[in-house]
Amino acid sequence: MNDNNIIETFLHPKSVAVIGASKNPMKGGHRILKNLVINNFEGKIYAINPNSSGEVFGLPFRKSISDIEEEIDIAIFYVPNRLIPKILEDCIRTNVKGAIIEASGFEEIGDEGMKLKNQIVKITDNFSKIRIVGPNCMGLTTINHSSDADNKGGFFSSFLVFEEYKRGNIAIISQSGMLNGGYLTHLIQKYPGLGIRYSCSIGNKMDISELEYLEYFLKDETVNVITIYLESFKNPRKFIELCRRAKNHPKKTIIFVKGGLTEQGQQATVSHTAAISESEILTEALIKQASIIRANSFFELFEYARTFSMIYDSNKRLPEKGSLGIIVGSGGAGTILADLTKKYGFVLPRLSDNSYNILEEIFPEWMPPNRFALVDIWPAMEKAMTTKSNPNDVMKSAFKAILEEPKIEGLIDFMFCSRQFRPMSNVNVLLNVIEQYSKPVFFFLIGEKKEVEYVGRKLSEYNIPSFSNLESIAKNFRVLLDESRSLHKFNSM
Amino acid sequence: MNDNNIIETFLHPKSVAVIGASKNPMKGGHRILKNLVINNFEGKIYAINPNSSGEVFGLPFRKSISDIEEEIDIAIFYVPNRLIPKILEDCIRTNVKGAIIEASGFEEIGDEGMKLKNQIVKITDNFSKIRIVGPNCMGLTTINHSSDADNKGGFFSSFLVFEEYKRGNIAIISQSGMLNGGYLTHLIQKYPGLGIRYSCSIGNKMDISELEYLEYFLKDETVNVITIYLESFKNPRKFIELCRRAKNHPKKTIIFVKGGLTEQGQQATVSHTAAISESEILTEALIKQASIIRANSFFELFEYARTFSMIYDSNKRLPEKGSLGIIVGSGGAGTILADLTKKYGFVLPRLSDNSYNILEEIFPEWMPPNRFALVDIWPAMEKAMTTKSNPNDVMKSAFKAILEEPKIEGLIDFMFCSRQFRPMSNVNVLLNVIEQYSKPVFFFLIGEKKEVEYVGRKLSEYNIPSFSNLESIAKNFRVLLDESRSLHKFNSM
Repeated sequence: MNDNNIIETFLHPKSVAVIGASKNPMKGGHRILKNLVINNFEGKIYAINPNSSGEVFGLPFRKSISDIEEEIDIAIFYVPNRLIPKILEDCIRTNVKGAIIEASGFEEIGDEGMKLKNQIVKITDNFSKIRIVGPNCMGLTTINHSSDADNKGGFFSSFLVFEEYKRGNIAIISQSGMLNGGYLTHLIQKYPGLGIRYSCSIGNKMDISELEYLEYFLKDETVNVITIYLESFKNPRKFIELCRRAKNHPKKTIIFVKGGLTEQGQQATVSHTAAISESEILTEALIKQASIIRANSFFELFEYARTFSMIYDSNKRLPEKGSLGIIVGSGGAGTILADLTKKYGFVLPRLSDNSYNILEEIFPEWMPPNRFALVDIWPAMEKAMTTKSNPNDVMKSAFKAILEEPKIEGLIDFMFCSRQFRPMSNVNVLLNVIEQYSKPVFFFLIGEKKEVEYVGRKLSEYNIPSFSNLESIAKNFRVLLDESRSLHKFNSM
Repeated sequence: MNDNNIIETFLHPKSVAVIGASKNPMKGGHRILKNLVINNFEGKIYAINPNSSGEVFGLPFRKSISDIEEEIDIAIFYVPNRLIPKILEDCIRTNVKGAIIEASGFEEIGDEGMKLKNQIVKITDNFSKIRIVGPNCMGLTTINHSSDADNKGGFFSSFLVFEEYKRGNIAIISQSGMLNGGYLTHLIQKYPGLGIRYSCSIGNKMDISELEYLEYFLKDETVNVITIYLESFKNPRKFIELCRRAKNHPKKTIIFVKGGLTEQGQQATVSHTAAISESEILTEALIKQASIIRANSFFELFEYARTFSMIYDSNKRLPEKGSLGIIVGSGGAGTILADLTKKYGFVLPRLSDNSYNILEEIFPEWMPPNRFALVDIWPAMEKAMTTKSNPNDVMKSAFKAILEEPKIEGLIDFMFCSRQFRPMSNVNVLLNVIEQYSKPVFFFLIGEKKEVEYVGRKLSEYNIPSFSNLESIAKNFRVLLDESRSLHKFNSM
């Protein structure tokens, strides 16, 4: 079976067997089953455990995979390491196509684990008889429908049960299981707008590695953003080649974070996934050649992913020259933002007459607007209150002034969210102004917690990213610029 | 009146008059009054507005400050700029000690504003007849009692009404009004553990500047952490001298963020507070001489402030050598943390036999613990589940192993928060282990939103900081090390 077909089978299996199924809720085999069942896996599920009888989640226990006559696409293992070779032999005999091995205790534990690995290589005839995901991983997740839909679910094989999720255009490839476990749960709740299509924990990548998934996602049209965490590269040359190939596909952005950059981190990777990590210098050279976006932490990885995901979903244009407009209600934040956007390569251009005139009308005479693209809206708000005009019209005018300025490629708005001030800055009136332009708009939200959450949710429904940190906002605009420049470079080659 | 006495009067006034008091909830003068009243200002309050009659918040309107016979400490102005000189004359005549001018429209608007300023300098005889805070500011806040106390409140003079707050050991000096407004509201809700004592918006600092507050806070024993945002220095030499003086006081840390570092930011400051900003190079030299902690954004400013605030409140010792221990439930996070702590100057030392033996007992034979101070707890958890021992005892042992290691000065714990996993990692059992040692412990929390909030609140009750970003955790440990090193340098001079 070629690589693309086997990944299709791993991510969209028609039947699965859980090896190590259990009635005990504290056991991984129980939670894997639960994850499949409550998330409406559409195929057949078999529960395998020679020491159990009766049923679990309405599924009868089977002693062995050999007892099943029907065809099985994928076996998911949650049993102690030493039992695995024997059961893999059963799987090969019954023509199971792939195994997801979540148990640890292989190369990462030293000699004994290496012996187990060698045994598996031999049994599988170097993975030609059955393909393997893991070991030492947290399985694969495919989201077909968001958790608030009637037909929620997909294929969920992590031993951490997922209850809330949103389908989107992001695919995750990770050498840390947590990214298909705790992190994902966390991020999905933190960023209600973050929509995921696939999450693949690759573990020790004894057989299947980052490369097969990457190749698959390049061709899968439901994926626009590919996030990757690696501790080591299976084949750096092939990795670079695949990443460069992404430039030929419309709307494919790859974001990458590397673990094990320092000696201290490398010590850690050995006991984690037995990876021999590449150092900072090698990694930097590789990222440059691959022309991908680099993140420094999981947090940045997902913040960038969300940004690209929303930009693609809302059909906004990536900035090319690096010019922005800023609207603030706090002069201090305006100053910090002016510094930060400069630090990250952006200018706030001088406004042309058309835009300046729009602003001049809403500003009081005693405090005319800046001539450059930093609008401190407060005096205009004071004027609106004095003249009893609608402050929301003032905000709309300011947005129009910036978004219509031909020199400007994007807008950052600082919004103070408070029920006291809702009459003065109502997000709803801004949404359709923003929709009329192809320029990306980012919001910085501060204020009352509930109001911040309300506004953030509203914005994310319209694929408009919001942030709670000024430096993050500058960095996230910067990666858009990096991506458009690298696309430009490739297309002019 | 000397500087210290006038700041005492500004922060703890016995009587205040609100100039521009109003019945209209959209007006600043209304909100200032409301802020005073609902937060139980203990002194007398007078509502001044020549165009209003009747009452507001049960206070009768007065036409002018001259109508009041009682002594008034502070007049708070929320009226258009051009009316101010005339009213200031009234204030001087009636011996008001200080004025907080929140209105804008002075130096920052150009010639006309400069004229107004000069008029005020003349009327006040160069601020000898009355002292002035602002103009163009958001007032002063003194928190005597947290908002959940029966006797909540203090002195609240911002035109943004505060409803939730916690008294603590942090004082804020800010050239951005928002830091005594929206930011403060936001931060207090975001970090329930963040306790504030004072927040001072200095605006254009026509008279009173950062220097008087700084001097006052050095002597005020309720303050341990002083956070400062400036766009320009009133007197760099004096600023450095005061900051260095902090080293002679126990438990005083100054954290600083500078706006207007780039030309773009400097353009912004002119229209904000009329400040002529110092560039990056000058600022860096000044910070080095002043030996203070530098932050790059408001977010960092408050995250560092919270860290120091909690370290002081819980009597933990600052790290001196730069050695840490890490406990993780995710190998990937362990790797990233090992890289990040290295980047920020920390080592994970080799464990001595005592600590190693504690760990060896909880780990399975097939996966012994690392010899260096990075504990990936997962195999120990699996062993606990197999042997039916209590996973919480396993966590406690891991904490003890690290905290008892003499080479280690602090601990980072990665905690996955989930109701499913509460039996395996219960924060409550760790709290009293942590209390027994003087080493700082930071938590990284991910998982289900509600559970993360629950654990974060629990930790903050014990003055243990928690984070949602691995890089932040490394940075926050780093500033502790910076502070202890600079203290050491001063004390050995």
